[in-house]
Amino acid sequence: MSARAVVATMTAYTLELREAAVKLNQNESPFDLPRELKERVLARLAARPWNVYPDFESTALREALAAAYGYTPQNILVGNGSNELLAAAIGTFVGPGTPVVFPRPTFTLYEKLVTIAGGVALPVDFDPDSGLLPLDALLAAAGPGVVVIVCSPNNPTGGVLPEGGVERLLATGATVLFDRAYGDFADDRLPPLHDRLVTFSTFSKAWGLAALRVGWLATTAATAREIRKVKLPYSLNVLSESIAAEALANRELRDRNVASILAERGRLAAALRPLATVFPSAANFLAFRPVRNSREVFEELHGRGVLVRDISAYPRMQNCLRVSVGTPAENDRFLAALAEALALETAP
Amino acid sequence: MSARAVVATMTAYTLELREAAVKLNQNESPFDLPRELKERVLARLAARPWNVYPDFESTALREALAAAYGYTPQNILVGNGSNELLAAAIGTFVGPGTPVVFPRPTFTLYEKLVTIAGGVALPVDFDPDSGLLPLDALLAAAGPGVVVIVCSPNNPTGGVLPEGGVERLLATGATVLFDRAYGDFADDRLPPLHDRLVTFSTFSKAWGLAALRVGWLATTAATAREIRKVKLPYSLNVLSESIAAEALANRELRDRNVASILAERGRLAAALRPLATVFPSAANFLAFRPVRNSREVFEELHGRGVLVRDISAYPRMQNCLRVSVGTPAENDRFLAALAEALALETAP
Repeated sequence: MSARAVVATMTAYTLELREAAVKLNQNESPFDLPRELKERVLARLAARPWNVYPDFESTALREALAAAYGYTPQNILVGNGSNELLAAAIGTFVGPGTPVVFPRPTFTLYEKLVTIAGGVALPVDFDPDSGLLPLDALLAAAGPGVVVIVCSPNNPTGGVLPEGGVERLLATGATVLFDRAYGDFADDRLPPLHDRLVTFSTFSKAWGLAALRVGWLATTAATAREIRKVKLPYSLNVLSESIAAEALANRELRDRNVASILAERGRLAAALRPLATVFPSAANFLAFRPVRNSREVFEELHGRGVLVRDISAYPRMQNCLRVSVGTPAENDRFLAALAEALALETAP
Repeated sequence: MSARAVVATMTAYTLELREAAVKLNQNESPFDLPRELKERVLARLAARPWNVYPDFESTALREALAAAYGYTPQNILVGNGSNELLAAAIGTFVGPGTPVVFPRPTFTLYEKLVTIAGGVALPVDFDPDSGLLPLDALLAAAGPGVVVIVCSPNNPTGGVLPEGGVERLLATGATVLFDRAYGDFADDRLPPLHDRLVTFSTFSKAWGLAALRVGWLATTAATAREIRKVKLPYSLNVLSESIAAEALANRELRDRNVASILAERGRLAAALRPLATVFPSAANFLAFRPVRNSREVFEELHGRGVLVRDISAYPRMQNCLRVSVGTPAENDRFLAALAEALALETAP
């Protein structure tokens, strides 16, 4: 075997695979699309030929996104989850020796993709206590020729970039890859288009379509043309493309689901605070440090049918867990299991 | 904007977008899955939650492929079309300066992916006349530290690697990426597993599922582990995964479709020979050089409702077109349109 040294020394992106009745480990939406909507769109798809490649440009979905978000289709690329588009953008901007700055802890895939591209990863370590990403430290490291990757709200901490942060990062001359996978939960605004800015969005979280793997990016037409050279052709299958367009036409479903999750996030955070240090979160999850050993708590929760994410291996997240905000019933079950795990009584 | 120089100087992978009643330009299968099969699998999918990520390991499809092809699931990775897996394998084996040998003309994506990875593309030019890929020239260029990419049957020429070619390339010490996207039409055999060999297959051609974007690779478990580090997680959505597994359970459909295409390929080649130089093809398409200017013929065909692929820009394919083998009726229509375009009479 002759895998490159940079690959041989990497570890794979992994997920601890566990079954559980209450699954709060992947920041999924707890809300599926209504069955009748699913059946309607699938009936249409049965009539479509499956032996024919998808539309080369995914025009229908790009037009729908452009109309929904105030862009033109030339500003948009769609792909097989926003991960694919992030990889394509990193392949476009990051080559051997390119300095790439990102807050840490954050989504671990960024550093892997930068390493594969031969870039120099320059993490900016920060503590999640304030709920803000370390803008000043990022600004100090940014500049012309530097690529900055920011996830806001940030996974796994939940914190956000301070207001105006994207614009200030751009003003340094850096290229900014802005991942707003969780932006719908923060009521974020999409920053104005810029040749050095690429914004990544997903249907996997607030839209509740994680099973279908659909993401999209927005940037200037000129930058979209460059990234399109690196992105694989036909990367979005016709079923996922059609379903995403259908979801976009029913955005009141997303808004209702987001409203429920935000209400529950507040309730969950309040109930958690007596039991753990809870980090401020603008996303659909909460990172927290329980008063007991986190691995033991993880196992106790799992033994009670609740699966959360053990994030204690992330830098500065020692002894921390992350729980996705579920339905009210799922959150109740999590809170009850946690109280038991910590040998405390829940409030009546 | 600050796209890397290597990207800025690249051209995008493009496709000439045209509408046509008879679409023979993308080597798709002309046969859709039966409607009742599509409806049965979609009904199951409506019942599956769409808000939950796909299985992290795509275990069900990997197990089905392993059983069908005599592997273990550890030998197999599945992805969003074989293109994604090719890109991951190139990212695994090709870094700055890595020499990468491939026959030319071939699928243009290989060279783009090698360029993005910083590898040194070393094309081995050959003429498609013999129907064989240039094994001796490939062997002369191969060796330890070299990556060889071979598509057999080759796109767009239709030729194949001589028997035993994969084994001889491996014997040089090279890493071999073997794309058998069209292998089902050549009744190929999958070569024995080897740490330096990765075999790529697709559901887009013989299986007739181009719309769904499903590909797979086979290699040793050790090499699969390395490629998995580079491949994006969750790259196969649940709908495509389920449908591919269903297709695999109904492989008599594929066999029937392949038999029809092979019979038609022979008929089409025989009918074409009086009108063009036809290159030997073991795939579901024919490359041919008409006696008249190929661009004019392309346009004349399109004016008659038949879309083929203009491959005249490929090295050594000056004045050539490529036609996918369609249904008998589609092939008749193509032949009639071509005869008209060349102002000849078709045989009665």
